[in-house]
Amino acid sequence: MIEIIVIGYGNVGSHLIEVLLSNTSINLKQVYNRSIEKIEHLLSKCPITNSFDEILEADVYIIAVSDDEISTVSKALKIDNKLVVHTSGSVDMNILNSNRKGVFYPLQTFTKNKSIDFSNIPLCIEANNDSDLILLEKLASKISNNSFILDSCQRKKMHLAAVFVNNFANHLYHIGYTICEENTVPFEILHPLMEETLNKIKGIPPLDSQTGPAKRNDQKTITLQLGQLSEAQQKIYMSLTNSIINTYKNHG
Amino acid sequence: MIEIIVIGYGNVGSHLIEVLLSNTSINLKQVYNRSIEKIEHLLSKCPITNSFDEILEADVYIIAVSDDEISTVSKALKIDNKLVVHTSGSVDMNILNSNRKGVFYPLQTFTKNKSIDFSNIPLCIEANNDSDLILLEKLASKISNNSFILDSCQRKKMHLAAVFVNNFANHLYHIGYTICEENTVPFEILHPLMEETLNKIKGIPPLDSQTGPAKRNDQKTITLQLGQLSEAQQKIYMSLTNSIINTYKNHG
Repeated sequence: MIEIIVIGYGNVGSHLIEVLLSNTSINLKQVYNRSIEKIEHLLSKCPITNSFDEILEADVYIIAVSDDEISTVSKALKIDNKLVVHTSGSVDMNILNSNRKGVFYPLQTFTKNKSIDFSNIPLCIEANNDSDLILLEKLASKISNNSFILDSCQRKKMHLAAVFVNNFANHLYHIGYTICEENTVPFEILHPLMEETLNKIKGIPPLDSQTGPAKRNDQKTITLQLGQLSEAQQKIYMSLTNSIINTYKNHG
Repeated sequence: MIEIIVIGYGNVGSHLIEVLLSNTSINLKQVYNRSIEKIEHLLSKCPITNSFDEILEADVYIIAVSDDEISTVSKALKIDNKLVVHTSGSVDMNILNSNRKGVFYPLQTFTKNKSIDFSNIPLCIEANNDSDLILLEKLASKISNNSFILDSCQRKKMHLAAVFVNNFANHLYHIGYTICEENTVPFEILHPLMEETLNKIKGIPPLDSQTGPAKRNDQKTITLQLGQLSEAQQKIYMSLTNSIINTYKNHG
């Protein structure tokens, strides 16, 4: 049975702890959090601490804190010859202050208080030696059906791609929502369209599924639509429209 | 039984004809297309023509041609006292040259040669008199479970919202795809994230589900990520990032 200690009870940490606790082939040996109050409710399920001096022995230490704090926490941990991993998409593995290190990055957008089915979450793993990579693969396979070995450079690029398809897509949804709300149109009308937009690109590259005024370089509609937008929306509209026009100019 | 004539065999027209033909309580009385070759294969299922002089009598005439041609086609039709509708998201109903007019706009992104389940497609309808609105509601209910009465102004705004959540979201998917491809990361890793991004906003407004560096105003990550992008991608990145930062500045 793999013994795990999780450091940090933020968005990623809390969801990870939830799935580790529910798995009978994993021993969640301890949870650390700076503020002990936030993890007191876990006490009936596993030992907790807010002191690095009290950290127990385990096979894998998962540092699930914000990017800026990974280095500090890693130094404070003082772990020798045990695997220490972080859970960040954008931080290099080598920031970890340990001879055996790795990354265990669940690529998903977590919402506090909303349970998530880990079985479909892609886990991106990396380690600085082969046996630890095998250990992380074993751990990953216990909680998800999708694990991928990515090095730090690939992971950073994927994290960047995720900013576009997740964070930025969500802001476009927000703009669509706002336009609907201001005109008393139910936003739900757009749900099937949004679903089909996503479904399409599972079968064909998004380059081939593009539609709309920018794809057609339909200047008349573009001008009409620009006139209906706020200044910030216009900037977004134009940056995307110009990029689409240029993309298809080059692709014929 | 409602008698329908469809004018035009483009993306919307061809999908509409497919669903009308499959419906036993609708009589697709005739299909018009400028180029007769493109609709010859329909001949075994319904009469076809490429001459406005040969157009038959029916209850509803559906003009499914490109936005720029709606007015010309409507004038060429010479229909008296029958309901004439177009299928466009952005064109005003009043462009139609007919005393009984309306709109029958299926809000979906259609792909040639890809069948679509109409039962979930929102149909946005409008008519210039109550009895024709009822007729359109009846027609809509035969092919979809979702019909909405929107006036021309609301429909135009919803079409604008659709450009953001469909066309622009698809281009963000394209950028994510490109970044993955250039770094030999399988784009499929991002699919569950994209699904969750969409699922979230069915339960809560997108304003509340925003995450990422821009939401946190994390200038360090923003600068790092900008440095990895092409010029066109940088413009998109900054327009969205600035808009997100300003959105949450105002919302605390």
